[in-house]
Amino acid sequence: MTMQRSLGVCYYPEHWDEAIWMKDAADMAALGLTWVRIGEFAWGRMEDAAGNLDFDWLDRSIKILGNAGLKVVLGTPTATPPRWMLDRHPDMLAVDEQGRERKFGSRRHYCFSHEGYAQECDRIVEEMARRYGNNPHVAAWQTDNEYSCHDTTLSYSSAAQSAFRNWLRASFTPKGANDGDISALNAAWGNVFWSMDYADFDEIDLPNLTVTEANPAHLLAFRRFSSDQVVRFNKRQCDIIRAHSVAPITHNFMGQITDFDHYEVGDDLDFASWDSYPLGFLEDRVNAPEEHKRAFARQGDPDFQAFHHDLYRTVGKGRWWVMEQQPGPVNWAPYNPAPLDGMIRLWSWEAFAHGAEAVCYFRWRQAPFAQEQMHAGLQKPDATPAPAMAEAAQVAHELSDAPSVTPAKAKVALIFDYAADYMWSIQPHGRGLCYFDLVFQTYRALRRLGQSVDILPPTTRNFEGYQLVMAPGLMHMTEELKTALTQAKTNVIFGPRSGARDVHMATPVPLPPAISKLDVTVEYTESFRSDSPIELTQGGAFQGFREEISGAADVIETTQNASPAMMRSGNMSYLAGWPDTAAFQRILKRELQEVGLKTLDLPMGLRVRETGAERFWFNTTQETISLEGRDFAPISVTRDAL
Amino acid sequence: MTMQRSLGVCYYPEHWDEAIWMKDAADMAALGLTWVRIGEFAWGRMEDAAGNLDFDWLDRSIKILGNAGLKVVLGTPTATPPRWMLDRHPDMLAVDEQGRERKFGSRRHYCFSHEGYAQECDRIVEEMARRYGNNPHVAAWQTDNEYSCHDTTLSYSSAAQSAFRNWLRASFTPKGANDGDISALNAAWGNVFWSMDYADFDEIDLPNLTVTEANPAHLLAFRRFSSDQVVRFNKRQCDIIRAHSVAPITHNFMGQITDFDHYEVGDDLDFASWDSYPLGFLEDRVNAPEEHKRAFARQGDPDFQAFHHDLYRTVGKGRWWVMEQQPGPVNWAPYNPAPLDGMIRLWSWEAFAHGAEAVCYFRWRQAPFAQEQMHAGLQKPDATPAPAMAEAAQVAHELSDAPSVTPAKAKVALIFDYAADYMWSIQPHGRGLCYFDLVFQTYRALRRLGQSVDILPPTTRNFEGYQLVMAPGLMHMTEELKTALTQAKTNVIFGPRSGARDVHMATPVPLPPAISKLDVTVEYTESFRSDSPIELTQGGAFQGFREEISGAADVIETTQNASPAMMRSGNMSYLAGWPDTAAFQRILKRELQEVGLKTLDLPMGLRVRETGAERFWFNTTQETISLEGRDFAPISVTRDAL
Amino acid sequence: MTMQRSLGVCYYPEHWDEAIWMKDAADMAALGLTWVRIGEFAWGRMEDAAGNLDFDWLDRSIKILGNAGLKVVLGTPTATPPRWMLDRHPDMLAVDEQGRERKFGSRRHYCFSHEGYAQECDRIVEEMARRYGNNPHVAAWQTDNEYSCHDTTLSYSSAAQSAFRNWLRASFTPKGANDGDISALNAAWGNVFWSMDYADFDEIDLPNLTVTEANPAHLLAFRRFSSDQVVRFNKRQCDIIRAHSVAPITHNFMGQITDFDHYEVGDDLDFASWDSYPLGFLEDRVNAPEEHKRAFARQGDPDFQAFHHDLYRTVGKGRWWVMEQQPGPVNWAPYNPAPLDGMIRLWSWEAFAHGAEAVCYFRWRQAPFAQEQMHAGLQKPDATPAPAMAEAAQVAHELSDAPSVTPAKAKVALIFDYAADYMWSIQPHGRGLCYFDLVFQTYRALRRLGQSVDILPPTTRNFEGYQLVMAPGLMHMTEELKTALTQAKTNVIFGPRSGARDVHMATPVPLPPAISKLDVTVEYTESFRSDSPIELTQGGAFQGFREEISGAADVIETTQNASPAMMRSGNMSYLAGWPDTAAFQRILKRELQEVGLKTLDLPMGLRVRETGAERFWFNTTQETISLEGRDFAPISVTRDAL
Repeated sequence: MTMQRSLGVCYYPEHWDEAIWMKDAADMAALGLTWVRIGEFAWGRMEDAAGNLDFDWLDRSIKILGNAGLKVVLGTPTATPPRWMLDRHPDMLAVDEQGRERKFGSRRHYCFSHEGYAQECDRIVEEMARRYGNNPHVAAWQTDNEYSCHDTTLSYSSAAQSAFRNWLRASFTPKGANDGDISALNAAWGNVFWSMDYADFDEIDLPNLTVTEANPAHLLAFRRFSSDQVVRFNKRQCDIIRAHSVAPITHNFMGQITDFDHYEVGDDLDFASWDSYPLGFLEDRVNAPEEHKRAFARQGDPDFQAFHHDLYRTVGKGRWWVMEQQPGPVNWAPYNPAPLDGMIRLWSWEAFAHGAEAVCYFRWRQAPFAQEQMHAGLQKPDATPAPAMAEAAQVAHELSDAPSVTPAKAKVALIFDYAADYMWSIQPHGRGLCYFDLVFQTYRALRRLGQSVDILPPTTRNFEGYQLVMAPGLMHMTEELKTALTQAKTNVIFGPRSGARDVHMATPVPLPPAISKLDVTVEYTESFRSDSPIELTQGGAFQGFREEISGAADVIETTQNASPAMMRSGNMSYLAGWPDTAAFQRILKRELQEVGLKTLDLPMGLRVRETGAERFWFNTTQETISLEGRDFAPISVTRDAL
Repeated sequence: MTMQRSLGVCYYPEHWDEAIWMKDAADMAALGLTWVRIGEFAWGRMEDAAGNLDFDWLDRSIKILGNAGLKVVLGTPTATPPRWMLDRHPDMLAVDEQGRERKFGSRRHYCFSHEGYAQECDRIVEEMARRYGNNPHVAAWQTDNEYSCHDTTLSYSSAAQSAFRNWLRASFTPKGANDGDISALNAAWGNVFWSMDYADFDEIDLPNLTVTEANPAHLLAFRRFSSDQVVRFNKRQCDIIRAHSVAPITHNFMGQITDFDHYEVGDDLDFASWDSYPLGFLEDRVNAPEEHKRAFARQGDPDFQAFHHDLYRTVGKGRWWVMEQQPGPVNWAPYNPAPLDGMIRLWSWEAFAHGAEAVCYFRWRQAPFAQEQMHAGLQKPDATPAPAMAEAAQVAHELSDAPSVTPAKAKVALIFDYAADYMWSIQPHGRGLCYFDLVFQTYRALRRLGQSVDILPPTTRNFEGYQLVMAPGLMHMTEELKTALTQAKTNVIFGPRSGARDVHMATPVPLPPAISKLDVTVEYTESFRSDSPIELTQGGAFQGFREEISGAADVIETTQNASPAMMRSGNMSYLAGWPDTAAFQRILKRELQEVGLKTLDLPMGLRVRETGAERFWFNTTQETISLEGRDFAPISVTRDAL
Repeated sequence: MTMQRSLGVCYYPEHWDEAIWMKDAADMAALGLTWVRIGEFAWGRMEDAAGNLDFDWLDRSIKILGNAGLKVVLGTPTATPPRWMLDRHPDMLAVDEQGRERKFGSRRHYCFSHEGYAQECDRIVEEMARRYGNNPHVAAWQTDNEYSCHDTTLSYSSAAQSAFRNWLRASFTPKGANDGDISALNAAWGNVFWSMDYADFDEIDLPNLTVTEANPAHLLAFRRFSSDQVVRFNKRQCDIIRAHSVAPITHNFMGQITDFDHYEVGDDLDFASWDSYPLGFLEDRVNAPEEHKRAFARQGDPDFQAFHHDLYRTVGKGRWWVMEQQPGPVNWAPYNPAPLDGMIRLWSWEAFAHGAEAVCYFRWRQAPFAQEQMHAGLQKPDATPAPAMAEAAQVAHELSDAPSVTPAKAKVALIFDYAADYMWSIQPHGRGLCYFDLVFQTYRALRRLGQSVDILPPTTRNFEGYQLVMAPGLMHMTEELKTALTQAKTNVIFGPRSGARDVHMATPVPLPPAISKLDVTVEYTESFRSDSPIELTQGGAFQGFREEISGAADVIETTQNASPAMMRSGNMSYLAGWPDTAAFQRILKRELQEVGLKTLDLPMGLRVRETGAERFWFNTTQETISLEGRDFAPISVTRDAL
């Protein structure tokens, strides 16, 4: 199987005089773009008063774009309900953890649990799907825009409270029963602990503003519920669109958002996509030393985009795009520098190297008004080219030489579980301990060793073809996952905190990890000061977190005071702490070599990625890097045939 | 007089299958424990719906424990009202300073001023006292649990507002009058200042959310009122229990809580107790350099526990326990490491050295559910021994060799006043200036000089037997205290800020300290940058705070620009600033030697403490410490007979 | 023209026993004071219950002061409405950005938009103006006190919401029309962006608590509205006073308050005044390195007071006072040290050197109660002299030798625009980028080069007499200003961000700065890490912010990677970034020398300022400074005749 590679752009016809549409469309096509995404914030133009629908302008816009040879990705506008919607549904707003309504005046001003608003969304999506479901130019759909952006997954509204109670009631209704069993909830949550028992589901509040921390079971249930509300909201739109259209459906996910289960949303999509802003992410989200941020301030972190490319490839079941690609300085990070020359091209090719089918730049023309005026586009506000335009043209040109990709399965897999992130964030046990960071540091270590990596959901049952599976930090593991990993013919590295909790966040007895084939038991857990790492005998250290483990498995790593740090039974190992960079590199290099994989020692700014037919090298530094007798030029993409 | 030393444990029978109770009890007794505290969070099991009382399980539990030879400390469960209580008293919740209700879902979800809830507490305590007042196994009572934990003393609810108005009205009702005199309040508070006069007590709001800082008199009144509400709440329970039981009553206080007057609560108890978590406190509460925290991360601060031991010995009028002793990693501090081997034993003996009658470990078995799953116990969740078990056994064994203590009065006293802490926190005058820190640094300096210290309340009138009394930072001093100190045959060191305010937080004229025998006047006060200490001529410096003083007293210390830094008249001195470590050590060494006390120069990790018959040495470092030709082993307790 | 120099003091007769008034007045006069400000917080004494007026005490006080030879500045008491006012107008309180009412209990507890309260202010001002309008001792009036202190300009109350809607409706009512045009607002704000269009002005909420940032146009409108509310509030009082009195009217402004347009308030006053607290400002407001703050902790920043002197000279159209001069330690800064000996005198003379007519010390006697007890006065609370008294006496004595000033126009002007500050704060584009700092750093650079500086409002149209005009950061420039500057016979330096937005915060096309005579275009803008400055070829660097510029103008500065950094067409230049200290000094020195102005290289602690007839030198360091063969003593004022 091969897939076509193409480029696109995000466009807002409603922002510009209709007189310019034709030229814009022609210019996009001339640039070599295939796709144009429109519509996702335009509810106010589609329906300027309740029931007063106007799609004529959108008809014209789609026609002009289509006639220029462009394919349209049509967005549903549900992230920006117009002001009149508030009059119809005054209680539709989300409420923040402090109990404050999150008001109209920007975007994403809705609570996922509000049924009245959800029905309005059904209605507008139905209108659009009916009208454009068979439009020859509408070649794909996007639902809503960036779920969870601006922390909008968790809402503490009364709509959310009612929905949460119903969700709990349903969760605790035994098979065949008519109603929920509150005593089962009390038992599962351990509510006896501080006399927190409930007599009825309707007594359960949302877990905010409690005197001290709420029951972690309560918090975890709320996190799972909130994720389900996003899944459900998205699925309603997908179902309506599919009833009228065969065009594929996507959603544009974001970077380092762990508030809902992206795999589950992905299950309702035809392909995944995400919005990639490497410079904004570096300053705003990547947890790295200031020195690292300074070194990559105009290139972005060398692994952060790649991680999400690999993640969303899985979320999209192999099919994915970059729906928004940063084209220059953005407006929202602590610092918003211009990328170095060549980075727009590099980011584009990096996405293709990880299997992207399309890369769409955000946005065609920089907006001259409202919130994102400082966000660059391919054009400046005066419709002249911005610096990114030339690089986009170069990529378009280069695609003619490499128009398709043969996907490849990696030899190394890394399991990433959204629920594990909920659980670590609910009880991190020590300052700064974050599941996403643990997984990302594992990923970075593998990438520095030259590996291509597949990211897998915790629902994976078939690990065939992988020679090493990394499973760090999975605080809860189902028996099915344990069994699948136990039976897999691959090396597996668990820990820390693997299986530390049951599905309700309680501690299982016998003690974790309770994997029968791996005779290891966690005796106790400790967090410690970041300035006091615990050295490993063979080099490197645990930082911030470790577990005291025991058992009959072989001890293959020890701490300097002789506690086991890693134990192994056959092809399964348990790593009982959070390794620093040196320990990660050393341990993973040994494991990779044991399973027969070639490793490289890549400097921070050089990365390699293989597809089925090509090997790409990316140098994101401003220096030439030499590796094994070969020179990689500064800010460069190198493509080898395999 | 001598007092017996014993060990105990905290236990939650309601958390475990009744089948295991018998074995638990037997194991406790076999370990050498005497005491077992139960019941303090079990209201939900005693009364699962309003009025539906069930004490049968508690009867059985007490019987099993008692039959195993254990003595029960029975806690009233008023820190955890069940969910149904909220239906009966929807306005019983506390409100935080920002005006948000502090919701159900954890513990301590009540406002001390809510009379309806207080009556529910009366009822459940009465039920328990009637039922267990003469139970032969119930050998002590604990009221509620950790007053003020999670910042629960101050509440801004409407119940608190009404109660505050009534409290003020009563405070300003002249003897013999029927109603309060609002003009007296206006005058005492200086409300003329910004036209803040009130026409009636019912016009007075709680002092939160004012445009800028509220009148300090207003804030201080609210702090005193809030303290009184805790005292009153506790006294109601004590009075009810005493009507039915002769067993002694205690409450388990906490570390570095200054929100209410512990001496006054102590007046209604038979003995004091406190919950000692050395590692959690070090990271979460002790104000010390990071280097100090790193050095003692697994031992705890060398003075923090001792300070509270000495404080609660006074609060309990000589009788006190450690009710909860940290047994391993806890769950609530920024970092939660395991203690070094030997520390559980060391902490236990340190408590006994300071006069504790009992040390109870928290808790028997680590909970496998709810908020405190990461909190170690003597047993792991699977009922196997945790590391602390062996050390507890060792202490139990060693107690047979030192089963009792002869209390001793120290030669040095340090006055600690909760109201002074209110006043410093209301007007610190400079960033980071905190009364508790001033007192604690005074204590640490004395301890480093080898002194045993008695901590005294500001109501002390008899200072007989003390050779030096430290009275730092007493922003308000009653005339009775000034007289008592003036007439005492002991050296007294006042300052800084001694007597700076009257009882309503106003500045007295003539200017402070206004102690007739000590001819010193504070001309003005200044705070300054922490990076700009003011050097003292004889060594060391003032840090952050000093006063310009004048008068006829002798100048015995000067700053480098020749201002008086310490002045003396006879046996009374005034220290006009906040000394750094070097100045504290130098000045106090001279003072101690002047009154004929032997001083030592102890390194940070070595401390000495005398009882009536023994001298204990504690080395909390991992190195051997040599002192005066003698070696103290790492992490060790050394007991000399006197 | 020459103006008299005099001294004064702030006094609160209502705080003291009437028996002491006569002696206080005599002592003030004996000290050499001319002015005494009273009354501004005394509403509660003028009207202790609604309608129960009592001015007798104030009559007596004014008479006593006047008979002693003092001139009274009478303050309106509207900053401190009494408690009974809340009963009449329960909704008069301001509401903070988080939606919380800002309660009674301190001062400034009112919303500028509340008409009911405004009418109460009309009433009390009318009463005072009628009674004292012709009083021979009342020689000036002060309106209210420190507008915006404690962040009180912005209010999110329902009164503010209604007023904002009306303000917008009026703003968007075309000439001759009867009602506002909401479509014009939607277009001007670019509300199409995220479907934020409104159908009616009454749909527009205040721009707080939005899900993410509100539309910058929305925020800017709210800032302009809020400023207008202050202007309107002040003007009502001025109009009432003027109907009854010919005495001049002032208001006491503050340091670094940019929440409202001080020029516009100034237009309704007869002279400006401000409250100068050099030590408090240094710690609390000046953005400078810690080392700088340590060096000037007891002297204050060497430029901060001067900047405000020059600013308020313009606000007062040439006439201005220091209404409150710090006399010793204050109570409100993070650290509150005593000034070095001589600083009270130095600050007084510095004000006179910048053209002040009067300097009034705050306050006569330190308050022994309420919020400001830790704030020094000329007297201590016991009525004995505080350290400042002697310095005030010295200044009074010295004034006899220099009793008047001949104002002088500077050769260098610096435009300061409050609306530019709103705009930078709404979209700074990078962390820490603050318009006030940019202007202040420009001012400091000019002052270090020995210049006297005039600060001008953006409404200036006549630049005659200036040889250099600095116009940094004016994000919006009217066409009238552009024209005036283009036609002026002076060198002008624009940038960065000059004209970057239109009056509604939208980006203009053609792109900025769009000054026809200056052929420069901003291609794009970037912010960057503070640890990664962009070096300039000729020395120094841009820090944090720069613009990529192009055009036909001459390139006179370049960055190290060859981008233009400064361009010039004739006498107009554009500086395309934020210079660091070295770049500022180098560039401005060259510009000053080009226009023929002599420059000095002053160290941080030495400043020079010229009036029409004198040159003053101020050394604020503790060392002797030598400059061009002349020695300036530590903490000294040197006055040369010109």
